[in-house]
Amino acid sequence: MSYPTSPVYDWLDIPTKHKRSVYFDHEKFHIVLTDQPALPDTFRRHTCPSVEATAFAINTMIVRGAPAIGVTGAYGMVLAASESSSMADLLKHKATLDAARPTAVNLTWATSRMLDFVSNILATSKTSKTSKTTPTIKSLVPILLDQAEQLADEDIAINLRMAKVGSTIVPTFQHRATNISHRCNTGALAATDWGTALGVIHYCHKILHRNIHVWVDETRPRLQGARLSAWELTKANIPMHLISDGVAGGLMRKGQIDVVLFGADRVAKNGDVVNKIGTFPLAVMAHTHGIPVYAVVPTSTIDLTCITGDDVEIEERNSNEVIGLSFFNQGSIAPTNVQVYNPAFDNTPYKYLTGIITEEGLCYPPFTESLLEAKNKAEERIQSKNGKFIRSRN
Amino acid sequence: MSYPTSPVYDWLDIPTKHKRSVYFDHEKFHIVLTDQPALPDTFRRHTCPSVEATAFAINTMIVRGAPAIGVTGAYGMVLAASESSSMADLLKHKATLDAARPTAVNLTWATSRMLDFVSNILATSKTSKTSKTTPTIKSLVPILLDQAEQLADEDIAINLRMAKVGSTIVPTFQHRATNISHRCNTGALAATDWGTALGVIHYCHKILHRNIHVWVDETRPRLQGARLSAWELTKANIPMHLISDGVAGGLMRKGQIDVVLFGADRVAKNGDVVNKIGTFPLAVMAHTHGIPVYAVVPTSTIDLTCITGDDVEIEERNSNEVIGLSFFNQGSIAPTNVQVYNPAFDNTPYKYLTGIITEEGLCYPPFTESLLEAKNKAEERIQSKNGKFIRSRN
Repeated sequence: MSYPTSPVYDWLDIPTKHKRSVYFDHEKFHIVLTDQPALPDTFRRHTCPSVEATAFAINTMIVRGAPAIGVTGAYGMVLAASESSSMADLLKHKATLDAARPTAVNLTWATSRMLDFVSNILATSKTSKTSKTTPTIKSLVPILLDQAEQLADEDIAINLRMAKVGSTIVPTFQHRATNISHRCNTGALAATDWGTALGVIHYCHKILHRNIHVWVDETRPRLQGARLSAWELTKANIPMHLISDGVAGGLMRKGQIDVVLFGADRVAKNGDVVNKIGTFPLAVMAHTHGIPVYAVVPTSTIDLTCITGDDVEIEERNSNEVIGLSFFNQGSIAPTNVQVYNPAFDNTPYKYLTGIITEEGLCYPPFTESLLEAKNKAEERIQSKNGKFIRSRN
Repeated sequence: MSYPTSPVYDWLDIPTKHKRSVYFDHEKFHIVLTDQPALPDTFRRHTCPSVEATAFAINTMIVRGAPAIGVTGAYGMVLAASESSSMADLLKHKATLDAARPTAVNLTWATSRMLDFVSNILATSKTSKTSKTTPTIKSLVPILLDQAEQLADEDIAINLRMAKVGSTIVPTFQHRATNISHRCNTGALAATDWGTALGVIHYCHKILHRNIHVWVDETRPRLQGARLSAWELTKANIPMHLISDGVAGGLMRKGQIDVVLFGADRVAKNGDVVNKIGTFPLAVMAHTHGIPVYAVVPTSTIDLTCITGDDVEIEERNSNEVIGLSFFNQGSIAPTNVQVYNPAFDNTPYKYLTGIITEEGLCYPPFTESLLEAKNKAEERIQSKNGKFIRSRN
């Protein structure tokens, strides 16, 4: 498949297929990742030649962002197959990968999809009249790699479909730029390329040549907005201003924000959106000022088993992220013995959302119906593709 | 005057009159300040033996907080008199002090009050039948110091009156602590002692022995919540949790905040409150969830010449405060060439406030009336005190 060139990596003088946040080097047989903790100071790549190295990169957040983690997990299963003498070995390696970020739905989703693929081939070969022996796990490495490459391409394709859908709700003005508010990082860095909410922004700029300007929430405590989104937007030459998390509300009151776009870690059946901490106040401020608010998510992020967002357990993270021993220099920024409450996510009830943008189209209230419809469409698409794929191998 | 012992400085083994954020050492003849940039790492004092040193300490924010700056300015005028041979000298020194923080209303208010006092004495001595010569500026140093001490005592007295008024709106619960949300630093560090919004909290804990717990907004970008309020509350043994600025909204939704208290840099005639950036979203979130919101301010912060908060010019500060060259270690937290919008304050329209707490009582809507009334009461109090004071000297 071929895609529009990367919004973020075009400045790199490397082959187009390597202009991604995650790719597989077929010659050297290892995964190549953009080293996210090194940004924005240094752009460098991090390589994973083994399952262990891949799990380490996921666990230490050298790679982050649900779609990017998913694709890394899929490539990790290729390395796993190359290190496996038996199905038991492969299962053990899968468990190692899955444990690297236990709450990341996309990781398990991708490794499971790769495992199912292996199981299917083995099952098919046993019942096949033409093959005499069951293939070894190692012998499946080339077609597993092919499958992982398809999954990576599919990630970009989904993001581009989402971006196209999303671009229809970004308003345009004759004599001024459209001001978009964005939180966290949901861009090329968080995916194979393009991204979700930032993918819409990249698409508006690079493909549609729209006049846009982005207000980037710095996104305390981990500062993904300041560290990653600001770097991405700068690389893509998209006009932007970085702001502290308390600034957007005042901008809205002064009519300086036209639309709010963010991603999500999980979307519940009723349309509640669990996303980076601070998304809820951003949505409420927009709602108060009559500004449209959209979550941009692939259908794989919609979890119909969660009735509401309150069913999602909110991860509490280490106090060091807030008191800053890892970020600040002149000692810590708070008394080191201080009590800290550091939830990683919050729940934005569906009533504060204008709509939810997916690769299968725009979902509007009632979300219980529209999300189910999008989810079903996506399932049909995967089924038809998988069917075709398995047929083509037999 | 004597006051309840300091909520924050009681742990210091020094005379009670030195247990303040600002005081004058009569023996060594210099101002003593708590060095705020050194907190929370190190508690140390900073001395100002001259007008120049005092202006430097105000300008570099070694002392911050409107009431604390005012009292420092008053003591600065004592040093100014000791360095003056003429009224022209004194005026020059006053200008140096005022220029240190040009937008700080309290600074000019305090230095002007000291100057008026000198002018009154000189005018009185000229018309007096008993005095033969006009006193020199230097000879007025002892009674100027006495006047500055009165102003410092008055600051504490005003804060305690505000705290008492404020404590009446802090709800109590039989089986659990009252959860109070607070932003920035408005405590003993920001005043001579006790403070404004945090003064209410200190009073509830130390005087009324109420069961309270404080959610402390870290207050990006300058982190006054993390650096100063967390230190103050820890010193005062008040239960608290430090939170990122995006967390309070989610806590409100879960019923974990009972009341929101903050200070203000300026209150307009209509009740609009201009305060630390991020106050507006905090107030809107509380309003959305039916949680009472109060600004706690001395009447000197009410500016009847501003019709609405939008009449107040919002100071934009250096981008380094956001991209963190002064706070963070591993390089900067954003691309160094990134555009930043860094307003220091925002305007919370009066409709989001439940009430405004002053030393002259609780102000409720319509604020245009209640604020004027409080302002008049305070003016009467000052007039009667000044009258008494001037009479006692003649």
